[in-house]
Amino acid sequence: MTRTLYALAGADRARHFSPHVWKVALSLAHKGLDFETAPVGFTEIPAIEGGATKTVPLLRDGDRLIVDSFAIALYLEETYPDRPSLFGGEGGKALCRFVESWSQTVLHTALVRFVVLDIHDCLGPEDQAYFRTSREARFGKSLEAVVEAGGGEIETFAAKLEPLRALLGKQAYFGGETPCFADYIVFGPLQWARIVSPKVVLADGDPVKDWFERCLDLHGGVGRSVTSA
Amino acid sequence: MTRTLYALAGADRARHFSPHVWKVALSLAHKGLDFETAPVGFTEIPAIEGGATKTVPLLRDGDRLIVDSFAIALYLEETYPDRPSLFGGEGGKALCRFVESWSQTVLHTALVRFVVLDIHDCLGPEDQAYFRTSREARFGKSLEAVVEAGGGEIETFAAKLEPLRALLGKQAYFGGETPCFADYIVFGPLQWARIVSPKVVLADGDPVKDWFERCLDLHGGVGRSVTSA
Repeated sequence: MTRTLYALAGADRARHFSPHVWKVALSLAHKGLDFETAPVGFTEIPAIEGGATKTVPLLRDGDRLIVDSFAIALYLEETYPDRPSLFGGEGGKALCRFVESWSQTVLHTALVRFVVLDIHDCLGPEDQAYFRTSREARFGKSLEAVVEAGGGEIETFAAKLEPLRALLGKQAYFGGETPCFADYIVFGPLQWARIVSPKVVLADGDPVKDWFERCLDLHGGVGRSVTSA
Repeated sequence: MTRTLYALAGADRARHFSPHVWKVALSLAHKGLDFETAPVGFTEIPAIEGGATKTVPLLRDGDRLIVDSFAIALYLEETYPDRPSLFGGEGGKALCRFVESWSQTVLHTALVRFVVLDIHDCLGPEDQAYFRTSREARFGKSLEAVVEAGGGEIETFAAKLEPLRALLGKQAYFGGETPCFADYIVFGPLQWARIVSPKVVLADGDPVKDWFERCLDLHGGVGRSVTSA
């Protein structure tokens, strides 16, 4: 059986960086499921698997194709119930949606302003043109202006992590003593920043950095299979 | 069997307002467990139940005494497993801790700056003196200065709720289609503000307000047993 995770990469195909793909990579590793990573550029996505998706992650699991990181995690939980649980029951599934909402509205929106130009710079020429046009339309300004306007935010980013820092005073992971899908949800955007940008977003001594390093070590260190920028 | 929830109240003993007590009141109602509310003032807490606690909520359940809202929710889940679940499994318990951390670090810290003087004003004379002294020491300034310094925050409070607003685009409650303890964790501080302060903290038309109104209606409208300020 072939299990393939389509993953967003830049000019260097060995360095896949999508936060949403990383959520799935760690989820597959959590379940102990082997998979191959198939790197694709932004502009190649519409052509993969006969036009199955406009976005990655896309997982091929035998004859099944599943799109969207949360949908893939639910699929893995249902399809491989005897492997370690990603959610710890129905309550965990419902509350992972809150962690996803927090991560998307607080972390992604802040981090994208730091790293959007770094992402651009790591892409091949065709993807660079697509990325600049689509993102500048979304932000309503040049990528350079986005990064410049976000300049002060790196100092306030640590404050945005305070809810996670407070949690880590009580337990080692979102999942308690061991990680769950919520850990991978929040790992994703921090891994994205680690891979595409040399900017430091987590300070030494911050319990959030310690947690992130523990996540990088999980499941044989799959998170370290791509080095930091 | 006597089940008593010790609840913080001001000069009007019928208006208990502690956010942490409200989490437990809704949790007891969620489990369908009858209870009596025993109102106490700040300075009376050390004397209740032979000095069992320095803080409320304190729950007496027959011959058991349990302190702390999260500990009480865990106790209820373990003791009444055949009643509707508050957590939906171990994953839900672990992630409720994150919701608690988010609520404490983001919502409580903002709301206390709006309502601290309103709390003071609803207390009896002895509790007013205790409250002013202890809180002014904690904030390092007068209660009036705390409220004045927090003046601009009511406009930014809506932004702090964005993770919950995004969640409510996907599902009706933290718990999914039905509420769980995480809903009561976040209901608590908003109910606290509703009861002690005439300030409007949730705007009409905000999905968070709609969710809060749904929470007020739950379990026979227990949340509406105390009217708004």
